[in-house]
Amino acid sequence: MYTVVFVEPESSGNIGALARVMKNFGLKELVLVNPKCTIDDDARARAKHAYEIIERARVVKDFKKAGEFDLIVGTTGKIKQGYDEVRCSITPKELAGKKIKGRIALVFGREGTGLSNEELSACDIVVHIPADGRYPIMNISHAAAVLFYELFSAGKETRAIASRREKEVLFDYFDAIVLGLENIREKKKVAKIFRNVVNRAAVAGKEAHALAGALNEIKKKLAR
Amino acid sequence: MYTVVFVEPESSGNIGALARVMKNFGLKELVLVNPKCTIDDDARARAKHAYEIIERARVVKDFKKAGEFDLIVGTTGKIKQGYDEVRCSITPKELAGKKIKGRIALVFGREGTGLSNEELSACDIVVHIPADGRYPIMNISHAAAVLFYELFSAGKETRAIASRREKEVLFDYFDAIVLGLENIREKKKVAKIFRNVVNRAAVAGKEAHALAGALNEIKKKLAR
Repeated sequence: MYTVVFVEPESSGNIGALARVMKNFGLKELVLVNPKCTIDDDARARAKHAYEIIERARVVKDFKKAGEFDLIVGTTGKIKQGYDEVRCSITPKELAGKKIKGRIALVFGREGTGLSNEELSACDIVVHIPADGRYPIMNISHAAAVLFYELFSAGKETRAIASRREKEVLFDYFDAIVLGLENIREKKKVAKIFRNVVNRAAVAGKEAHALAGALNEIKKKLAR
Repeated sequence: MYTVVFVEPESSGNIGALARVMKNFGLKELVLVNPKCTIDDDARARAKHAYEIIERARVVKDFKKAGEFDLIVGTTGKIKQGYDEVRCSITPKELAGKKIKGRIALVFGREGTGLSNEELSACDIVVHIPADGRYPIMNISHAAAVLFYELFSAGKETRAIASRREKEVLFDYFDAIVLGLENIREKKKVAKIFRNVVNRAAVAGKEAHALAGALNEIKKKLAR
C-alpha cells in the first residue's frame, strides 16, 4: 500500500501532474504537506482523468502528520560524493526489486529545493534516480513517473516488512547500547547507519524480533 | 545517438518539460514536427536549465522530414488485445536491454491523440509503457521520462544495428518474393510482420547482408 506525500508543493500544476502519473500506475492516496499554492485550474488541466485523487487528498500542516507508515521512502536529486548517512541512497530499480509489502510512503519534496536534510533524516530509505551529472535535477512528476513505473513493473509485492513499531523496539535497544559505549564517537551517526542498514535490508517482522531479542540480551549483559 | 521527435505538439509547456527530461538523461537533439503552438514563457519555465535544447531544436513540416535514422522508435499508450502488426509493441526495458547503437529516433505523438496508425506504421519499433489499465494514457513528458531513464540506466550502447539502407535491401527482396506468391492473403501484413521481426531483433549489418543474399537467391530461383 503506497501513499504519495508531496511536501510543500509550490505549483498547482505539479500537483495535477503528480496525480495523473499516480493514477497511470494504480496509486490512489495522496497527502499534501503544507501546500504553498491553492488548487486551481492548472491542477485540473494537468491531472486530466485523475482529478479525483486531488479531491480526495489529505492536507496536513506538518510532514510528521502525514500518516503512520512502516517505511518512509524519501526522494532526492542531490546526493553527495562518498558516504553520507542522510543522503545515502538506492535506485528506483533496487527499491522495486525488494517487492516490499506494508504501509509505505513515497515522499517528494518542494519543487525548488527538494526535501531538507531534516526531512530526509526522517525517511527510512532515500531513493535517487541516476541521471546525467550535468543536470540531474528532475521535475517532481518526472521523478515520480520513473519511481512509480519501476514499482508497477516489478509486479506484486510479496515480502512483508517489519512494522514501524517492531523496528522501533530494535532501534531503541541498539541506541541504548551504543549510547553506553565510551570509545565511540559520532554515536548518533552510528545509530542512523544501523537504521539505514535495517531499512535497506527490508527487514521482516521475525528478523526484527530475533535481532531485538539478541540486542536486549547484550544490553542486559553490558549493564552488569 | 538518439534524436527525440515530438509530432504536432499542442502545448508549449510540454515542449519545455520534454526538453528538461531530455537533458536530465543526457539527450540533446530535438525535432518538432509541425508544432501547433508557439514557444512561449511556459516552455522556458518548464525547461529550466534545458532551454538551449529548444533553442537548437529543428522544426520540420512533416514527420517524413524528421531526419535519416537507422531505427525509428514510436511510442503509444494505446495497444490492442491480440496481435496487431502496427501496434505490436515492446517495453522500454526491452528496448533498453538491446543496447543498440545507431542513428535512433524516439518519437512521441501529439498530446490529445498520440501518434496515428499511419505514423506508427512508419516506425520500426513501437514502445508501450505498461501501466494501470484503468488509466494507461500518460502525459508525454512522463512517458519520455520513463523511456529516457531506461535507456540511460542500461548504460553504454554496444550493439551496432544494420543501417536503414542495409535493411531496405533486405525488405525489398522479401517484398518481391511475397508479392509473387499466389496462395498468400494479406501480403502487406506479412511484409510488415517481417519488418517488425527484423527490427525487434535489432539485426546487425552482417546479418542483414547474409539474409538479403539468401533471399536474393530464393527470388532468382522462384523466377526460373
